[in-house]
Amino acid sequence: MSKFKKINLSEQEMPEKWYNIQADMPNKVLPPLHPLTKQPVGPDDLAPLFPMELIKQEVSREKWIEIPERVQDIYKIWRPSPLIRATNFEKMLDAPVKIYYKNESVSPPGSHKPNTAVPQAYYNFREGVKKLTTETGAGQWGSALSFACGFFGIELQVFMVKVSFNQKPYRKSMMNTWGANVVASPSNLTESGRKILALDPDSPGSLGIAISEAIEAAVMDPGTKYSLGSVLNHVLLHQTIIGLEAEKQFAKTDDYPDVVIGCFGGGSNFSGISFPFIKENLTQGKNIRIVAVEPESCPKLTRGVFKYDFGDTVGLTPLIPMYTLGHNFMPPKIHAGGLRYHGAGPIVSQLLKDGLIEATAVHQNECFEAGVKFARSEGIIPAPETTHAIAQVIREANRARLEGKQKTILFNLSGHGLVDLASYDQYFSNELEDYSVTEDQIRQSVAGLETLSVE
Amino acid sequence: MSKFKKINLSEQEMPEKWYNIQADMPNKVLPPLHPLTKQPVGPDDLAPLFPMELIKQEVSREKWIEIPERVQDIYKIWRPSPLIRATNFEKMLDAPVKIYYKNESVSPPGSHKPNTAVPQAYYNFREGVKKLTTETGAGQWGSALSFACGFFGIELQVFMVKVSFNQKPYRKSMMNTWGANVVASPSNLTESGRKILALDPDSPGSLGIAISEAIEAAVMDPGTKYSLGSVLNHVLLHQTIIGLEAEKQFAKTDDYPDVVIGCFGGGSNFSGISFPFIKENLTQGKNIRIVAVEPESCPKLTRGVFKYDFGDTVGLTPLIPMYTLGHNFMPPKIHAGGLRYHGAGPIVSQLLKDGLIEATAVHQNECFEAGVKFARSEGIIPAPETTHAIAQVIREANRARLEGKQKTILFNLSGHGLVDLASYDQYFSNELEDYSVTEDQIRQSVAGLETLSVE
Repeated sequence: MSKFKKINLSEQEMPEKWYNIQADMPNKVLPPLHPLTKQPVGPDDLAPLFPMELIKQEVSREKWIEIPERVQDIYKIWRPSPLIRATNFEKMLDAPVKIYYKNESVSPPGSHKPNTAVPQAYYNFREGVKKLTTETGAGQWGSALSFACGFFGIELQVFMVKVSFNQKPYRKSMMNTWGANVVASPSNLTESGRKILALDPDSPGSLGIAISEAIEAAVMDPGTKYSLGSVLNHVLLHQTIIGLEAEKQFAKTDDYPDVVIGCFGGGSNFSGISFPFIKENLTQGKNIRIVAVEPESCPKLTRGVFKYDFGDTVGLTPLIPMYTLGHNFMPPKIHAGGLRYHGAGPIVSQLLKDGLIEATAVHQNECFEAGVKFARSEGIIPAPETTHAIAQVIREANRARLEGKQKTILFNLSGHGLVDLASYDQYFSNELEDYSVTEDQIRQSVAGLETLSVE
Repeated sequence: MSKFKKINLSEQEMPEKWYNIQADMPNKVLPPLHPLTKQPVGPDDLAPLFPMELIKQEVSREKWIEIPERVQDIYKIWRPSPLIRATNFEKMLDAPVKIYYKNESVSPPGSHKPNTAVPQAYYNFREGVKKLTTETGAGQWGSALSFACGFFGIELQVFMVKVSFNQKPYRKSMMNTWGANVVASPSNLTESGRKILALDPDSPGSLGIAISEAIEAAVMDPGTKYSLGSVLNHVLLHQTIIGLEAEKQFAKTDDYPDVVIGCFGGGSNFSGISFPFIKENLTQGKNIRIVAVEPESCPKLTRGVFKYDFGDTVGLTPLIPMYTLGHNFMPPKIHAGGLRYHGAGPIVSQLLKDGLIEATAVHQNECFEAGVKFARSEGIIPAPETTHAIAQVIREANRARLEGKQKTILFNLSGHGLVDLASYDQYFSNELEDYSVTEDQIRQSVAGLETLSVE
């Protein structure tokens, strides 16, 4: 029997500040640019979209940022989240590894997304915002923001990619139960949506289109702002509570991670678990390996280019410095909808460029195989996104066995898969394809970006 | 701001024994009877169905029963579960009450059911059982036992009521992911099933039929045993870890419950939260009110009779002493599938008869209204079953306001509703009916039980 299975923190031990990695980065992030002037965007450019406090956080170089008491109170419904030793999974893998995971699936919406949804709703509430808009693909982000807005009486309009809207009725029900309004995107509510519907009334939608609609709906209505669940610096900041708690939890054990693993879409859960450990590498001379895991079907970190690019398809956002496959890149319809985004956040991109993190890509069948192994040993059915991290854990364990080396692995269990079970059905029926992206596809979709290069 | 939001226990503080209320009951439970001889059934009669350790627990009068280390290890994946102060819900209700809930929804299958599924799988494994059968209605129990069997490599055959099988494909996917085999009941796998299909090929099935099939499948195969998720004494015993943890958690506060509330189907979650507090009433002279909440559509506690009755429809079980609506009673199709059972467990029935607990019944629209209020204030979407407890919490709060009395309420959040969201959709669309059972219906369905009366 292991010394322990789970390390809980009391709520008194919950961190009271987020960690801002911008303070410690050797090379700071490049600023977002206005698409017409190519000049850095200032607070005023962003004010129609975000409350001032979040804009300040976006550019802050302060190392520690206070978590407001009201946000802490809501966090405490499910936080601190447990750090769990995956003893049964270890036995199954039979390799010289200790495996720990941070269980973010215990939040009421079932993922890490509320860590930023709650403070975003709070800061908007504080600045008098009555309504927010957002987009959602697989549904985790829309669910989390619905949950968060419920606490502050903020009205929420969610634009949900139409194909997901039709395939995942439970996600819509969750959001409705928390009081949000959900519409399939492209919709008739925006000019962007109407244009696309005029061209193709049966358009299945895309995350890029939904972002364009949500931004347009916010900009057109003075009392309304917009909220994003990944990519941006303030979003990643809020997620650092995951890794900060993990640090405190490891301090209660005799172990310490040699490698930290997170799946990668726009960067939010990966950054949450890893930034506090990168801090140790940067400031304490530690040498922890930090690994981001993306799908082979959407390989921006492993095969994209580091350029300025739009965050959405239509081109309503500022230009963001990121590893990208191009904002017109259309990823195949894999089941990890949360990882089907063309770009990586500016901070993560800079860290990758500077060699401070690693990136790797895996196919979805390998991921679901890993997810089923985990479910049958540890009992938690992981979200399709999360299975990417688990697939990499298995690769690390296999390598440790071959090398005969002891290793302690930490990964982020970013969410459970209980509202995404149709994907497991398809896996069991051998209906899942492993899509690879060709060099030609990437060359084409990043071609338009050449002149915007920062290199 | 409240003094705290959540009380966590460390895993070292998790109780290491279950509490057996049979030791403290002033009137002991009546024994189950063989349906032919009307003699008490002995261990040998039950041996084809259950491993000997569970049969011993079923009749034990020991006050404390050790939780095996291996079971503790698995519990620790999600236990101790948090005790949470529902501060936001309190504010919404604006009554002089403090409300606490035990959050059992954090288990990987999302309910309290694994508390007994894990030890049941363990004791079967220890006695060399390779395969189990069970039934499931709404799907919480089947999911939990699938999860538990995964840890011990036990094969599991689940008979799922056909109407649920078709309406809730995600529940089947969950069970498959954990490795269980699921079949719609009535099925062709058993004589009971084939008989019913011969009469009506389109039979929607019922929990009673599914129990008959699961029992038959176990009895006909010498290496296979059967597992039940409620009603029986050993099941309720395993659930007491909920209330035992809550006791320890209250000891860390300045509060103590005046009333303890649980929803009621067969008794498992209600007993889990309440038995340790009934212990305080029985042995420490405390005066905590204990309230079981059942649906108006299946009112065995509030309107049934205390008789010997079968646990299943076909009549394969022993005769069990219980408050019952008759084993042929067909409850309307309300959404809280887990509460649609015709009888109450023997222990709970005896406690009710002795005036040691209260019972009340509520309609489903009141329940869903309460569930939505809770979701929008505390953030957790409760299972349809759980909303019954929450409806009663609101009634208690309203009474406290009228009386101008302070009150501390504890209820069991037995599970989340993320895999039951279609029911919320129907509630929002005003499609839910509030079914009442007539006196005539009850008189008819309990008529055959007269000669079996224990009174």
